[in-house]
Amino acid sequence: MEAEFLRWLRERLPPHPRLKLGVGDDAAILGFAGEPACVVTSDMLQQGVDFRLEDVSPELVGRKALAVNLSDLAAMGAWPVGVVISLALPRANALSLAQRLYLGILPLADQFAVAVAGGDTGTWEGPLVISVTAIGELRGQPPLTRSGAVAGDAILVTGEFGGSLLGHHLQFTPRVQEAIELRQAYSVHAATDVSDGLLLDLWHIVQASRCGAELDTARVPIAADAIRLAAEGHRQQTALEHALGDGEDFELILAVPEKDAKRIVADQPLEVPVTRIGEIVAGSGLWQRDRAGGRRPLEPRGYEH
Amino acid sequence: MEAEFLRWLRERLPPHPRLKLGVGDDAAILGFAGEPACVVTSDMLQQGVDFRLEDVSPELVGRKALAVNLSDLAAMGAWPVGVVISLALPRANALSLAQRLYLGILPLADQFAVAVAGGDTGTWEGPLVISVTAIGELRGQPPLTRSGAVAGDAILVTGEFGGSLLGHHLQFTPRVQEAIELRQAYSVHAATDVSDGLLLDLWHIVQASRCGAELDTARVPIAADAIRLAAEGHRQQTALEHALGDGEDFELILAVPEKDAKRIVADQPLEVPVTRIGEIVAGSGLWQRDRAGGRRPLEPRGYEH
Repeated sequence: MEAEFLRWLRERLPPHPRLKLGVGDDAAILGFAGEPACVVTSDMLQQGVDFRLEDVSPELVGRKALAVNLSDLAAMGAWPVGVVISLALPRANALSLAQRLYLGILPLADQFAVAVAGGDTGTWEGPLVISVTAIGELRGQPPLTRSGAVAGDAILVTGEFGGSLLGHHLQFTPRVQEAIELRQAYSVHAATDVSDGLLLDLWHIVQASRCGAELDTARVPIAADAIRLAAEGHRQQTALEHALGDGEDFELILAVPEKDAKRIVADQPLEVPVTRIGEIVAGSGLWQRDRAGGRRPLEPRGYEH
Repeated sequence: MEAEFLRWLRERLPPHPRLKLGVGDDAAILGFAGEPACVVTSDMLQQGVDFRLEDVSPELVGRKALAVNLSDLAAMGAWPVGVVISLALPRANALSLAQRLYLGILPLADQFAVAVAGGDTGTWEGPLVISVTAIGELRGQPPLTRSGAVAGDAILVTGEFGGSLLGHHLQFTPRVQEAIELRQAYSVHAATDVSDGLLLDLWHIVQASRCGAELDTARVPIAADAIRLAAEGHRQQTALEHALGDGEDFELILAVPEKDAKRIVADQPLEVPVTRIGEIVAGSGLWQRDRAGGRRPLEPRGYEH
């Protein structure tokens, strides 16, 4: 089935200027435009854990497998270059399943000009696994790591949070373009993408940067789906709690120097809103500011893998 | 379990000069010494398909998952730089299994100075999947593809063939160093590694190069394990048939201009023997030469994925 699938796939892979050598040899060759360094990330989706094929089409599973990897590249401020994709396919209907996965992958790869540089495909008696490795380039710029935040930075976020399980987690646009536009026009000290949950991913930044964060939780942009979940009594949580903890929003959290943060919020240079939700502070931990000028601790809850 | 495993792993990953940013951020960053292009390959091993944990230790499974990827880099004439590794782990005993896989991976990574640049780890009810993506560099040299063979080239092979299932397929040394040494001192037109079988992988070269190959099958180096299998009546095949078709030898097949081939065979510059087994010819197909100067077709049989 692999040979037939590779034939099918090759016909659908347009030539890509960065793909110096594509599917069909022992390995693929990717060209880089910038300095000789590459950013590499890998995320895997497992049937029954990350998705159920009873609930989700293979096209959306394929799309998501690529999108979460592109979101990681965005969080590094990297330009996507290429991906390799490994599929462990349930034997029954393997070819059709592989094709439908790619029918979700290819349009997104095309949208972000990402070269599909091969991978591996096997069939078996087990459930579906799709493992994607994405490679990006920095074009001479420093990466946006989690460890660069300093006290006094503003905490900015793109988009809205919460209720992702109602559909956003399958349909989101990775913030590749947004990260690149911000890093080119403004100074950005640290960044990550929200997969585990807004608080938990912010906690990753403050841990890596050895600092703390104070949030004005009233400013956290709440998605309509978070309000819907709260109205339905989902997990007995408020809409804000959904926004802070649900995860899979795949928005960016950015630590930005005060001056640049003011400009970004005033300019609103992206298609998606950028909102200031707090500040990086000396010390450690996550804190919610109250109106009296005090603060109380926030639990970094979210989706723990 | 992933957090605990990552802590365990991080303590065992030595600093690597090429790993500009390692495990723990949204992605890893690999530095390249050569021109801005990288070679990327991905191979996945599936429990019950590629191995059975009843027969093989997790350490050997981990080692093999890395080794087959390094063999693909060798087949491209690339220097290994880094790998990312995704694991789908059966929930029972997942941590211990992940650790034992890495106890097989890390010594081989160290032997070839390969940076382990992260990956993804998940647990589930399904069988074990280990997917490795390896990234290599060309240091300004052209890649050794399958498509560069021309009529008149000699066909050289490293090592011996057949009977790999008796143990070699788990213990082999990827021919990374050998490929680099050959390409640096001699002209090499085309190369591949033998995973599917000597004939089938040679057939990949002649197909990609739009030519044919004539073999003197009496010269094919036969491994002792191929002789053992034949003596045991395994599949009613001769030792030569095992050598031509078994696969997973992970030796190199090289198409080399006559003059360089003569030098290589005379010099024997590698620790492993290099043997001339035939010539690339105009036309197409695989042929066995007979003593009368005639030829008869060889079936490109081997392990079809």
